[in-house]
Amino acid sequence: MLEIDLAGPAEGNPFVDVALSAVFRQGAREIAVDGFYDGAGRYKIRFMPDTAGAWTWETRSNRAELRGRTGRFDAVQAAPGNRGPVSVRNTFHFGYADGSPFWQVGTTSYAWTHQPDALQERTLRTLAMAPFNKLRMAVFPNNDDALAHQRFPFPGKPPHGWDFSRFDVDFFRNLDRRVAQLRALGIEADLILFHPYDKGKWGFDRMPGAVNDRYLRYVVARLAAYRNVWWSMANEFDFLTEKTMDDWDHYFQLVQAADPYGHLRSIHNAFRLYNHTKPWVTHASIQHGAATEDPERAVLYRDVYNKPVVYDEVKYEGDWVKRWGQLTPEEMVLRFWNGAIAGSYVGHSEIYKDPGGEIWLGKGGTLKGQSPPRLAFFRRILAESPHEGLEPIDKWQDHPFAGKHAEYYLGYFNRDKPAAWPFVLFKTGLRDGMKFRAEVIDTWNMTVTPVDGTFEIKRRDDYTFADKDGRSIALPGRPYMAVRIVRVR
Amino acid sequence: MLEIDLAGPAEGNPFVDVALSAVFRQGAREIAVDGFYDGAGRYKIRFMPDTAGAWTWETRSNRAELRGRTGRFDAVQAAPGNRGPVSVRNTFHFGYADGSPFWQVGTTSYAWTHQPDALQERTLRTLAMAPFNKLRMAVFPNNDDALAHQRFPFPGKPPHGWDFSRFDVDFFRNLDRRVAQLRALGIEADLILFHPYDKGKWGFDRMPGAVNDRYLRYVVARLAAYRNVWWSMANEFDFLTEKTMDDWDHYFQLVQAADPYGHLRSIHNAFRLYNHTKPWVTHASIQHGAATEDPERAVLYRDVYNKPVVYDEVKYEGDWVKRWGQLTPEEMVLRFWNGAIAGSYVGHSEIYKDPGGEIWLGKGGTLKGQSPPRLAFFRRILAESPHEGLEPIDKWQDHPFAGKHAEYYLGYFNRDKPAAWPFVLFKTGLRDGMKFRAEVIDTWNMTVTPVDGTFEIKRRDDYTFADKDGRSIALPGRPYMAVRIVRVR
Repeated sequence: MLEIDLAGPAEGNPFVDVALSAVFRQGAREIAVDGFYDGAGRYKIRFMPDTAGAWTWETRSNRAELRGRTGRFDAVQAAPGNRGPVSVRNTFHFGYADGSPFWQVGTTSYAWTHQPDALQERTLRTLAMAPFNKLRMAVFPNNDDALAHQRFPFPGKPPHGWDFSRFDVDFFRNLDRRVAQLRALGIEADLILFHPYDKGKWGFDRMPGAVNDRYLRYVVARLAAYRNVWWSMANEFDFLTEKTMDDWDHYFQLVQAADPYGHLRSIHNAFRLYNHTKPWVTHASIQHGAATEDPERAVLYRDVYNKPVVYDEVKYEGDWVKRWGQLTPEEMVLRFWNGAIAGSYVGHSEIYKDPGGEIWLGKGGTLKGQSPPRLAFFRRILAESPHEGLEPIDKWQDHPFAGKHAEYYLGYFNRDKPAAWPFVLFKTGLRDGMKFRAEVIDTWNMTVTPVDGTFEIKRRDDYTFADKDGRSIALPGRPYMAVRIVRVR
Repeated sequence: MLEIDLAGPAEGNPFVDVALSAVFRQGAREIAVDGFYDGAGRYKIRFMPDTAGAWTWETRSNRAELRGRTGRFDAVQAAPGNRGPVSVRNTFHFGYADGSPFWQVGTTSYAWTHQPDALQERTLRTLAMAPFNKLRMAVFPNNDDALAHQRFPFPGKPPHGWDFSRFDVDFFRNLDRRVAQLRALGIEADLILFHPYDKGKWGFDRMPGAVNDRYLRYVVARLAAYRNVWWSMANEFDFLTEKTMDDWDHYFQLVQAADPYGHLRSIHNAFRLYNHTKPWVTHASIQHGAATEDPERAVLYRDVYNKPVVYDEVKYEGDWVKRWGQLTPEEMVLRFWNGAIAGSYVGHSEIYKDPGGEIWLGKGGTLKGQSPPRLAFFRRILAESPHEGLEPIDKWQDHPFAGKHAEYYLGYFNRDKPAAWPFVLFKTGLRDGMKFRAEVIDTWNMTVTPVDGTFEIKRRDDYTFADKDGRSIALPGRPYMAVRIVRVR
């Protein structure tokens, strides 16, 4: 990331009065990038080049002192560990810019950046050890984030005396820093741009339309150059009753137009779904309490949207008073597996009661639950899967297998407790005589046990091939078991 | 339905050369209606008035002898049994124009109108006794409808020597007559305008674009005035590989523009879903083999589309060699119940082997299956439900109840075999002291058994109310059981 730092006017209201952008050029390419005012007469333009080599830049502005400034720089090759931004790949999946797959294993901590510094640091230490590679987090605080030290996105007097025509740059510098720290940890920051948990306390859920637009442009100008940023227009958008469906269309389009890099864009629902078929939605971000209890449910949205489906909220692990926060760790992990078998992705969070109110879902801190080690194991299994992504093997048939035809099959038995699995595969791509090896996976106890020998298949009926000797694979009669079948040549 | 019969030019090719329409006027209203050439120098304009009273009409044409013809007539009140056309109501449901609900219980017989007359008559006699109020049927024949006597939509020599610039009016007169006979039986005709079962045999699946457009306009001109017509753009549209998604958008829009009455419009899929959120789609017509095995699956499409969802194909009752034609009657009936509990609708068909090839799905005739009596029983239960339609009571929670909060609950236990159901209702609309009566429904054995006494509720927890004395309802431990709970005052 390149940051250009320019001196400019400090008088008046630079947030509103001063327009600044730069055009970055390499060969025939031109990329227009908005700058932003960072206070005290300083203006910044951040740029994320996607190719190495020489670039030049030239500023545009409505103010003479910021106009026509030029420069050049050499973009170096990405450092090891920098795989670039994540985008949609193979219709239903994600990949980094360097071609490697992004196997989304998400979590949510809405207001972790609005907590005391020590707690923010503890959250980062937790994330460094956790299995998550995406974090949903809100720009705006929750209505219970009322600590005296707290900074807000706008200058003024809490709870309602805001100057909506300016931004509090210290607030946004903290956000920048936290996003950069996530980037260093290999974690995508799914930035929630609006949410309903303000409930009028600060009023950030019901700002005037022009303020919303300026706020979105400012966030994009500051943060789009961070390669790990995703844009989530809202959490539970339909609970933001002051905004219309047309407003959401507009916000999507504004962000899409302002972001030079095309970061991922989504919107998360409560009871009503946004129309994720709209072209500016890159992937469906879904809250649903029951869809990931069964791969045959979870696959349905995929068929509708022809985009990646991320079940960002599937209820939470915890002991909360409300039913959406009472998943056992086993049920939390089960949802990730079912989502994967449906060719989709799932998000975690937890809400265990805490005497100090330190709850991961809202404030971050430490994780109390038992699902994270199992999700680390799950992520390891994903990482060993075909890099194209897991595809349902025989959808619409209650066949809980995903993978890649004739190469790789991952089957998950959910809450069932089978004593054996007959070695039978759906026909696509198969021929008599193909050979496979098998492993039994205990997704809860985190073991992978190879099955002795290989399985040679022959056609069984119109739809399936089976082991030529009719063999089955023994299973321990416990729930949460999986099998992995890999072609051998 | 009014039919205006006019003499006009017979020379040349009137199907292509002559444009004819009429404007029907009542007070300030004007409705433009296309006419059609019916052979032998006769032109027809059919009109379905939606209000009683005096109407006038005046023709428009590119031919002098058909131009400026005028008339007037009095539309009388609808006769008993004529409830008018069906349209969407309450977002997810259907209703007749007279305000009564349309509880869709569909079946499919693609090519029944392409069979020998005696078989067509037998199909009608079967339908007269069957529980179905909607029939999916194709305009074009299947590739195995090769009987010597058969008429085709276009004049010419089978299999490929068609004059696509003309229509065979006898073919279409038979179609008119059959649609009228269905109308008399109270059955909606869901006319499938294109399908892939031609497979190039007759070539009706791959006609030039201009022919497709002329064909659609001709069908709409002939049939839109039949109140029981629905337009299904295609069966398994994605198997019609000669047509693009843009073509389908175009056909939808053409039919929408040509139809003066706004009949229902849908399109049926094989493996790929059309984007049913598009504005010209009135309801989602879905093929899915597994979605109606569970109400929690079936409800998902509803949430996506915010339109009625009709699972027109859910596999078929039968003993066919392919797995899509092997449902037991029990499984066929189960799918209707699950669909209803999800606030959606389901379609039947059957494919039992027959020595003479008389298979209901393809050719009609008689029904061999055991589901129809149970579907008649099912339809009776629907008809006794709130006329607004069955709405899921607590979606996303594996709660298999639909109905109307605080008034009516229909619960269905699917393949489970509970010995009892604790009287517990989801909270919406409930207050302590409300009273309900209950019935146990055996959906397979077609019995409704009242439960003694009434149940008085009190709040149990954050989400539910229960019988104040903690009572349960005894169930027989069989599958396919339901309970019906109705408020008493």
